[in-house]
This record gives sequence, structure tokens and C-alpha cells, in this order.
Amino acid sequence: METLLVDASLSSLLNPASIAIVGASDNPDKIGGRPIYYMHQFGYQGTIYPVNPTRSEVQGEKAWPSLDDLPEVPELVIVAVPGQKAVDAVYRCADLGVKAAIVISAGFSETGDEGRAVQQKMAQRAAEAGLRLIGPNSQGLANFANGAIASFSTMFIEVEPQDGPVAVISQSGGMAAMMYGLLRQRGIGVRHMHATGNEADVTVSDLACAILEQDADIRVVLLYLESLQNPQTLARAALLARERGVTLAVVKSGRSETGARAAGSHTGALASEDRVVDAFLTQHGILRAADPPELARFAELLLNTPASGGTRTVIVSNSGASCVLAADAAEAYGLEIAPLKDETRARLSEKLVDFASTENPIDITAALLTNSRLFGDVLGVISDDPNADMFLLDIPVAGRGYDVAAFAEDTARFARESGKPVAVVAWQQPVAAAFRAQGVAVFEDERQAAAVLAAAARAGAWKRRFAGGEGAAAEQPAVGAGVLAMLDGVQADSSGRRFLSEHESLQVLAGSGFPVVDYELCTTLEAALQAAERLGWPCVLKACSARVPHKSEYGLVDVGLGSTAALEAAWARQSAALERLDVQADGWIVARQVKGLREMAVGLNFDPVFGPVVLMGAGGKYVEAMPDVAALLPPFSRDDVLDRLRGLRVWPLLQGVRGEPPADVEALVQAALRLGRLALVTAGRIQSLDINPVLVLPEGEGAVAVDALVELTEAR
Amino acid sequence: METLLVDASLSSLLNPASIAIVGASDNPDKIGGRPIYYMHQFGYQGTIYPVNPTRSEVQGEKAWPSLDDLPEVPELVIVAVPGQKAVDAVYRCADLGVKAAIVISAGFSETGDEGRAVQQKMAQRAAEAGLRLIGPNSQGLANFANGAIASFSTMFIEVEPQDGPVAVISQSGGMAAMMYGLLRQRGIGVRHMHATGNEADVTVSDLACAILEQDADIRVVLLYLESLQNPQTLARAALLARERGVTLAVVKSGRSETGARAAGSHTGALASEDRVVDAFLTQHGILRAADPPELARFAELLLNTPASGGTRTVIVSNSGASCVLAADAAEAYGLEIAPLKDETRARLSEKLVDFASTENPIDITAALLTNSRLFGDVLGVISDDPNADMFLLDIPVAGRGYDVAAFAEDTARFARESGKPVAVVAWQQPVAAAFRAQGVAVFEDERQAAAVLAAAARAGAWKRRFAGGEGAAAEQPAVGAGVLAMLDGVQADSSGRRFLSEHESLQVLAGSGFPVVDYELCTTLEAALQAAERLGWPCVLKACSARVPHKSEYGLVDVGLGSTAALEAAWARQSAALERLDVQADGWIVARQVKGLREMAVGLNFDPVFGPVVLMGAGGKYVEAMPDVAALLPPFSRDDVLDRLRGLRVWPLLQGVRGEPPADVEALVQAALRLGRLALVTAGRIQSLDINPVLVLPEGEGAVAVDALVELTEAR
Repeated sequence: METLLVDASLSSLLNPASIAIVGASDNPDKIGGRPIYYMHQFGYQGTIYPVNPTRSEVQGEKAWPSLDDLPEVPELVIVAVPGQKAVDAVYRCADLGVKAAIVISAGFSETGDEGRAVQQKMAQRAAEAGLRLIGPNSQGLANFANGAIASFSTMFIEVEPQDGPVAVISQSGGMAAMMYGLLRQRGIGVRHMHATGNEADVTVSDLACAILEQDADIRVVLLYLESLQNPQTLARAALLARERGVTLAVVKSGRSETGARAAGSHTGALASEDRVVDAFLTQHGILRAADPPELARFAELLLNTPASGGTRTVIVSNSGASCVLAADAAEAYGLEIAPLKDETRARLSEKLVDFASTENPIDITAALLTNSRLFGDVLGVISDDPNADMFLLDIPVAGRGYDVAAFAEDTARFARESGKPVAVVAWQQPVAAAFRAQGVAVFEDERQAAAVLAAAARAGAWKRRFAGGEGAAAEQPAVGAGVLAMLDGVQADSSGRRFLSEHESLQVLAGSGFPVVDYELCTTLEAALQAAERLGWPCVLKACSARVPHKSEYGLVDVGLGSTAALEAAWARQSAALERLDVQADGWIVARQVKGLREMAVGLNFDPVFGPVVLMGAGGKYVEAMPDVAALLPPFSRDDVLDRLRGLRVWPLLQGVRGEPPADVEALVQAALRLGRLALVTAGRIQSLDINPVLVLPEGEGAVAVDALVELTEAR
Repeated sequence: METLLVDASLSSLLNPASIAIVGASDNPDKIGGRPIYYMHQFGYQGTIYPVNPTRSEVQGEKAWPSLDDLPEVPELVIVAVPGQKAVDAVYRCADLGVKAAIVISAGFSETGDEGRAVQQKMAQRAAEAGLRLIGPNSQGLANFANGAIASFSTMFIEVEPQDGPVAVISQSGGMAAMMYGLLRQRGIGVRHMHATGNEADVTVSDLACAILEQDADIRVVLLYLESLQNPQTLARAALLARERGVTLAVVKSGRSETGARAAGSHTGALASEDRVVDAFLTQHGILRAADPPELARFAELLLNTPASGGTRTVIVSNSGASCVLAADAAEAYGLEIAPLKDETRARLSEKLVDFASTENPIDITAALLTNSRLFGDVLGVISDDPNADMFLLDIPVAGRGYDVAAFAEDTARFARESGKPVAVVAWQQPVAAAFRAQGVAVFEDERQAAAVLAAAARAGAWKRRFAGGEGAAAEQPAVGAGVLAMLDGVQADSSGRRFLSEHESLQVLAGSGFPVVDYELCTTLEAALQAAERLGWPCVLKACSARVPHKSEYGLVDVGLGSTAALEAAWARQSAALERLDVQADGWIVARQVKGLREMAVGLNFDPVFGPVVLMGAGGKYVEAMPDVAALLPPFSRDDVLDRLRGLRVWPLLQGVRGEPPADVEALVQAALRLGRLALVTAGRIQSLDINPVLVLPEGEGAVAVDALVELTEAR
């Protein structure tokens, strides 16, 4: 899949060619010693520059008195010196052109107003210099793919690392370490373990986007969040995760009043009401776990089977009591107990002891002790039942006399062949280990298993909802790095302008895959005449300036230009108008004149409460007098768009009335999807985007934007 | 504490002097071999009689061809032969006068109607012979106090037993084994592990009562129930547990519709609506856990600190994020985040780093790494705060550099000294082990800890509610074995009588500690005259027969007999009346004539829906014409009784009006408490108990029952 946007500066955090440690220590248990110790241990291949004014060597590496003395500008600097020294080091990094710094040092915004002011000033200087900052008050980042362990976490000593398909990102270092440890305890490999601390610059969501963009091996991304300061970036991460088939799951703590207050005093962040957070996560298809241990459990099941076809669950146990407990737990988590087909039940009755019930839950009874194949036999029968979406296998008692290895092998084969989620419940460690060794997810009790299966069902429902795609069409370019760079360039523009020119706006649209009228941007009349010849007559001429957003009001738009003479005359008129406005044109748009069947107005608006909203309605000159508009919150599906279009007054016209042909509704739907996706990809950069009109052609002929105006949000 | 009732027949199940095994096997992995193997291994000191017609020796013990060949009647027989052989063995036990049998064999009610009929017939024969039955389809019983392991559970091989203060009782063998294993995994000693199977006779609640009566070392009783067929027995167990300070906690599964259905097909039991079950458990102060693992967690905390003074919880962590998660979890489980006193906060600020918040939750920050005493210091400060009821200590990260042993010692000392519940959260096994080694309860996540603390708070609230006692007065006999034996004797009475005589009824009352008028039961006129001399004139004479419950209607009551002559005349009149009724007197009651200040009617009624109900109201002849009655569901407290008495129309009179002295309300309250307690102790045996009147004397002089009529429920 194509990369949407690679933020190279974040890449310096994840894959630095060289790392300097300011405050490097020879003692591997000191904060300034741990990263070097870990990088040696875990095979970092880049250059390590210990910076320490009092030593010539640190842990076997040549040490340097200061950042200025290094033989090159290091790509990443770890700042592990206290107080003002840390601030000084960051300013020096900015001066030297270092790309990224991780400030481990504490004592900033978490200590109160004074520390907050110092932190803000430091972050501002870094932003001006293009220096990306992690922290301050960060435990650091760790990437086990390349051994770039810029972290002082104790946990890598306590629990041996192993590279794997999981990324853990957290504001809190403690929670990052804990999630890492819980995953490793379950035998799950963890590649990324990052802690962002005070988030003066880079946030958890930023790193999530960077990893989703840059690391194709990652299949599960787990986040611990105490606040949601940049929900649009998290929404972008969710889009990336959906499109790449990656599981994105979060813990958002501070649910309770006291919890939220504690979170505030801990990170100084504002807390959203928890129901709003829940609605936001649901809207974006982000799985929510109650706490880090549950997040680790989500990972165990969803690594192997990220989504389920439904909620219909089959329960199998060698204990009738566990059947009852599992059914209780399943229903408590909203799962349905799958009604088995008669054929399945008939086949089950051949396998089970006489008096065992063939209803779901299936009690295979203690007969398992004498017939070790019973487990595999029963799984073989139920795997064929189309009513079964997921499986909860509950083994409360096993041990001497039970062929647990055979059960585990049978289960693993069954899981592979069925392609459906399988959760085993086993509290006995040897039993759990036997199943884990076969790659089967194991949980300690029925409620834990049911919660994870319910997550798989939610993921499955979201997957089906977006099965039609979200506007990332294969034949058209996705939103490219160029578009985002342009938006960011304008935002960083010191003139403070908020509107893109028509050309820039159309480029943003085109970059999103939205169909745009065929046009050329010309700076001379000669070029304009050539363009018109290529595009065909009649054509449209528009003088283009970002300083004059509403150009038709100023006589800067001429349509239906049928000849060279008409184009020349229009050019002269518009030049005179610009002169009167004392404005220079950025260029002239010469566009093919398109005759649409229907005029629609389509737009994007950033609502202060709801975030991005895509608007669709009847276009043309009566759009304001007779509003007929549908709103959609991204992400939305093809069905969502059709559903809302059907609610418009103009819908019958789109279907074709009074002998007129039907309009190309599907093209309009695809256009709306691309606008929704653009909103997510640009993550809050666009305040509004008006396309009026979108000309919808007859069915099969498409739709096309002939005008567009992008307004940017105020610089972040 | 005095024993309420020792059911000797159940004692044969728990402490048998000899055990015969029908179907004894030399193979310790066979069902008939395991109990012998275990009894050898775990030191059973009684006599073992293997019964096996084909072997002369089994596992080193002399084997016997049949039960009939044994040199004595064994106290307990384990039946481990299949099908009809098992039925035959039970019938033989009945014939031989064996006291108790455990039927491990399956294939009875769980297989359908045919099996159910065989089971019922077998149980009926056992009941007739006074043979107590466990099972059929039972995994058996195990008592590690004496090594009487009449169980074939695999779990004693998987997880080493250790005697301890916990009893586990379950219908399901799997759940019994699982709970045993989960407790042992937490290092908790388990003495009793019993599985009742199909419960043709002895139920989980029966065994709970027996253990609570007979084993003073047990401090936590854990039950797994799928149905509640005999709630009154469970209510009796709850009374015993309250009075002995034992924690009684249950899992009642089948909460969901499918779960209930599965439970039904598993045990053939009717399912109550879960909300009703919940209300019942709450009414009786029985803690409810969601599943066996939670039950084991309850045990870990409540073994050391069975109750809390309130819900105000103090949270301490070395991670700000864990503070947030713990506060979320605490509030989700209804705990209050304790508002710390200003003085506590001032003292905390001396201990903590500058910027740490002294508000609860208390984030002691990573400073713990450099100052190992911080943990103990902070605990020392908060232990003095009167606002703190419970403590949740959360250690998400520790390891190299952390002095975990010191934290654990400090915490254990703190827990001992404060006497308040302390729950530690630590997922790292070495950290958890360090705390457990010091006797501190450890949980894997904040939700688990909060759930257990909430249970301790509930237990505390119940304890405070019943702090005034439940009518088991020290100076008066509790309900003794004699009373229950009498009730059971009448119930078993083949005449089918349902009413006790007045004398029997008054004895039941007196046995419960209820104050009863001074009287003698006489069979001759001479004895009656002597009694009257002793009791003083005037006296009361009542001819007493269980066949004439309403004797005043038949002229069998004479009051105000002031002389020998009057008594003789009354005797003659009543003898003539009896002759007319063709009834023989069981005896004549000669009672002291008491002049009460107020007449009250007090009674006990067994409602088919609500179980036992204690009724109190104005007595006397207008009681039916002008009802003025309050109802109370046992158990209830002194405050509950007072509260209901205040709602009676007669209340002002009890307080004293128009120059009359106040009545002895406290005596009336105590009498009501004793009646409530009698209802629980007799566990549904009494259909109704009418005391009309209870004469309430002036304040300080007591209250006294002068008449009583007990109606029994139909034989069970």
C-alpha cells in the first residue's frame, strides 16, 4: 500500500543513523547509562556518541566533551542531564540542526506554571529550528527492529525483549513498560515501546501515525492515553490502521471524575467527558480496553485473527459449570450464543457421550479424560457450522491423564483452518503454555475471553462497514506527501494567510483523488491560448489569487469563451480588474468548460465540537436560499453516503425525472468518500473546503469539481 | 461460641473413622484408586477398607470382597462402581446402617428422566435408613485436616495441597478443583474441597452449615452454586458465618438466559431470576463474586482483613498513570476516593518530592527508585488519617534498583498496625511474590483490587449493621440441637401432624432465647397443685394437646385461678371437655399469671415467595379487627426492629401515655431478634409461630410469651 505521508522528522526518532547521549554515564543503571547499555545489548548498528565532559570513554565508546565537539551533527540526541542543563542542550540541538531530541529530564510542565513556561519556550525554539522533541519527562523510545533503544526503562532487564509485530506507545513511561512486560509475558514480540512524557511536541498519536506509515511489519498498535489533545491525529492513525489492516486499540484512562482530576494533575491536560471519548473512539473504529492488561489480551487474540464475522459464539468445555460461566460472560459482553444447525447437532451427538447436550454451550464432559480425540472431533464438527463466528474453549481442569498437547494441536489447526477467532480459557499455567506454544490465544477466565471476543466482533463489524473502501482508489493518487507539505507550508507561512488559491485548492482536491476539471495554470496570455486549444473551446478563464477568494464578485471569472478573441478580451478585462484591486495574479486558470447534468455543492467543514464534517447538497445559485444539505462525520462508508443522499430533496432529480437521464450518483459517492478521507489524512489542518459546484454528469460519465476554495485552520 | 446444631450424620462425611471404597482399584489414576492413594499420601489415620471382589490387596491395604464381609460397619462408603452396581451398593449401605455414602458414579439425573427416577428412589431409601448421600455424579469430598480424601480430583496431583483456613464447596467438581487450584496458586491453604454433584440428598449449603458448625479453624467459606434449591439452608449458613466472623462468599452462575438454560441442562435445576438471587444474597450478607477467580481473590484479601470501616480508599502508586487507572477502577466499583485531612497532606508534603501532589491518589513518582523508604514513609503518614478506610497500593513497575522487599515489609507492618484492608496491585510475578511472602494480598490489575476492596466494604457495612447482635444472647441458651431434633422428629412423625403442642411450642421459643412465662407441664392434679404453690397464686391452667391447637375455643384455658379449690374445679372442667372431644391431654400447663403493661402479638410466618417473615403488632382481642402489624425479613438488626415498631399505631402507647409508664421496648426488640434468628436457624422448618400475646412489662422488667403455637412446614 502506498505511503500517505512520511514525516521524515519522526523517522529520525525511530530510525536514527546516529545517537548522541548528553549526560552519558558509564554506569548502566543510571538514566544516562541505560540507553548505551541497551544499544550495545540489542544490536544498534548506528553510531553512538556519549557526551560527557569528564570522561574520555563511556561503556567502551569514545566520549565527547560536548555536542559541539562531535565529528558530525547527530540525527538524534538523548538529553539525560537535569534542569537548566537539559534546556541548554535542547537549544544547542536547535542551533546545530539536530533533527530530533528525546528529553528524559523531568521538572517541566508537571511541576507547575514555571516549569510549563520553560517547556513551552523550549518547544517553540525547537519548532522554529525544525527539531522534533520527545518529552520532556519522557522515559524514551525503544525500537527493537534496529536496536535504537533511547529509553532507560528497567523493564528490558526484567523481561527479555523480542522483536515482534506490536507497537506500544504511551504518555506514561510506567504504562509503556507495563504493557511491554504484559505482552512479553504472553510470549508476544514487541518492536516499539515509546513513552512521550509531557508531549511538548510529539504526541502518542503522532508516533502512532509515523509507525503506521513507516513500519509495515507492525500489525497491532496499542496506545495508553490520559488525554486526547489532538483527536484528529488519532483519527488519522485510525484511518491508516483501517487501510493497512492493523489493529489499533487504546486505553483512555481518567474515566471517573477523580481519575480525570488525577490525570489532569499528572499531565496537566484537560479531560474530555468519557462518553464523548467513547463516541469518538467508536466513530473511528478504535478498540477501547479498560486497562493495560486487557489491552495485552486484545493483542494476543487480534494478532492472529484481527476480526470476526459476527458475534455468534460457540462454547465448548469439559465442565458443565464452565459452560454456564462462559455463557454468562458471553452474554454480559453482548455476544450471541450461536444456535447450531441441526446437522451440526446430529454430527455432535455421534461424537459425544449419550447424555451430553448437543446444544451450544457444548459440554464434552469428563469423557475427555478417556477420549483425548474428543476435543479435536468436536472442533471438527462445529467448524463447518455457518452459524459459528467465534469459539470459546474453556478448560477449567486438566493435568495428569489429559492429553493437553493434543488438544492444543487440534485447536491450533482448527483456528488456522477456520480463520475464525478462537479463545481458550485455562488458568493452569502448563495448560495455557501448551496452547500458547501452538499460537492459540489463552485467557485466565471467561470474562476476559468474552471481552476480547467482543472486541474481535466489533473490529469485524467495522471492517464490514468499510469493506467498500474509504476513497483510497487504486487508479488515483492517494493524498501525497506533497499535498500535506503544501498545507503545512502555507500554515507556517509568516504572512498568516488562511486561504489557498483556487489552483492550490484544486491541487489539494486532486491529491485526494477527487475528480477535478481538466485545467492549466497559465501565467501568460500565450500559454492560456495554447491551453485553450488543447482543452477545446469553449473554455473558462479565471484570474487566480489567494488574496481574492471570492473572485466572481470581482469580475475575475469568465465562462463560455468560444474563441481566441473572446479569451483575449476576457484576459484584458480581468487584468484591469486585478489592477483596480491592486493584486497580482498567481496565474490564470484556463479550464475545460464542462456541462453537468446536476450541480451539487460539496464541502468540508471543521466544526469546533464535532471535528471534520463533510457536507453535500444541491448546488447552484439557490444553494443559500433553499438549503438542502446532508452532513457526514468521517469516517463514513459508501452506504452512509448513499443513505444521506437519499434524504436530500434533490435525490429524485439525481435519479432522473421527466425524461432526463439519471446522474452518476456513484461518482458523487466516491467523491464524498475521498473528501472524508482527505479530512482524516489532513488531521484538522483544513478549516473548510468548498466545492461549488461539483458537476455531476450522466450515469457512467463521472462528476467533476470545477471550483474549490480551501481555508486552513489557524497555525497549530 | 456455642454450637447451634451438630448434624452428626454430616460429621460422618467430614470426619469418618473408617472409609470403605466400593470399586477400589490398585491403579492410583483410576477413580476407585485415587482416594486410597490420596489418603495414604495425605495422612488419613482412620481405617481404609478397599472393597474389590477380585483382589486380596489394593495399594497395600487388605481388600474385602463385599461390604458385607467387612469386620465392622464402615462410617463412610465411597461408591465408585458404575450403573446398577452403584445403586446396589447404596441399598446395601442402607441395609447395613452405614452413616454416609459418597456416590461418585455418574449416569443418574444428569442423563434424563430414567436416571432421575433411579436417583430419587435411591435417595428415598437412604433417607429412610438415615444414610446421608453425597452425589451421585460427585467428584467427592476432601478434608486436609485429617486426610479423609474421598475425592478423585486430579488437582491434588497438579497443585500440592496445604491445610488452611478455607473451605471450598461446589456442586461442580470442576469448579471445586479450579477454586482449590486458584487458591493454592495464591499460596492460600485449603482444608475442605467438596463437590456435591447431583445433590440427591446433601447440598452445598448443608455442607457449608456443617463446616461452619464443626470446624472452628475455617475463616473463609467459598461456594459455587448453579441453583438455589434450598435458600433457607444457605441463609442459615450465612447466620452461622456472621456470628462466627467467617467470610461467606459465593459464585452463583447462570446469570444470563443461556447460562441459566445451560445450568438447567447441566444439573436439571430450576433457575431463579438473577435479580432475585442478588437480592437474596444481599439480604443475608453473602458476598457474591462474578466467577471462581474473583472468589479466590476475595479470599486472599478477606482472610486477613474480613471487613472495612467504610468505602473511603487511599491510592498510592509510583506511577501517575496507575493513580488514574486506580481511581477509575475504585469509582467504577463504588468506592470513594478518601479526602485526606489537611494535616495528612501537610505531613505528606514533607515526604514527597516538591512537585508531587499530596491529594489522593498519591503519586510518589519514580523518586521511589532513589528513596526506598518513601513507600513506608507515605504509608506511615496516611495510616493515621481517620478518613482512610482502605488502601490500594499500585506498583506497575519495579525491578532492578527497587527495594521491593522493603516495600513489602513496610506494607505488611502497615496492614497489621492499621487493621484496615490493604490491596496491592502488581503484575510482575517477583513483585507479587515478595508481597505475598509478607502476607499482603496482591492483585493483577486495579479493577480486580477495587472489586475485592468493594467486597470488604460491603462486608464491613453488614458487620456494622449487625453489630448489636442478632438475638444470640450470652445469658440465654442458643437454639440447641434438642429443639431442631424435636422439629425434625415431628416432621418425620408418620402421623403427619403439623402443629406442635403448646408445651412443645413454648420449648421451641425458650430454646431460641425468647422469654417464656414460668410454667410447668404436669400430668396429675397433684403435680399441678404443687406447681401452683411454687409459681404463686393466681395461676393459669391449660390442657395441652397437639390435636387441639385453639384450646380456648374448647374451654381448655382457665386464668386467674386464685386457690387450690379453683384449680381443682378447673382441672375437672377441662378433663370433662377433653372427654367430650375424645382427646387425651399430653399434659396440663400450670403457669404463673403475669400482668403485662401492653399485649403485643408477635409471630413468624413462612411466606412462599419471601421465606420467613417476623410479624409484630398490637395484641389482644381486637388484633384481627384492627390490624396494626409490622413485618421484618430475617436477618434484621436492632435498628430495623425499632424502625418498624415506630411505624405502628401502638407505638405511642409503648412509649407511655396518660401517666402510664413506658413499656420495656428493648425487651420486645430482643424478643423479635431472637425470633428472626430462630427462623434462620430452623431454615424453613417452621411454617408459622404465633405468640399471642407477648406481655410487655414496664421498662426494665422485660417481656414474656404466655402462649405459643408452632406449625411446621410439610415434611421435606
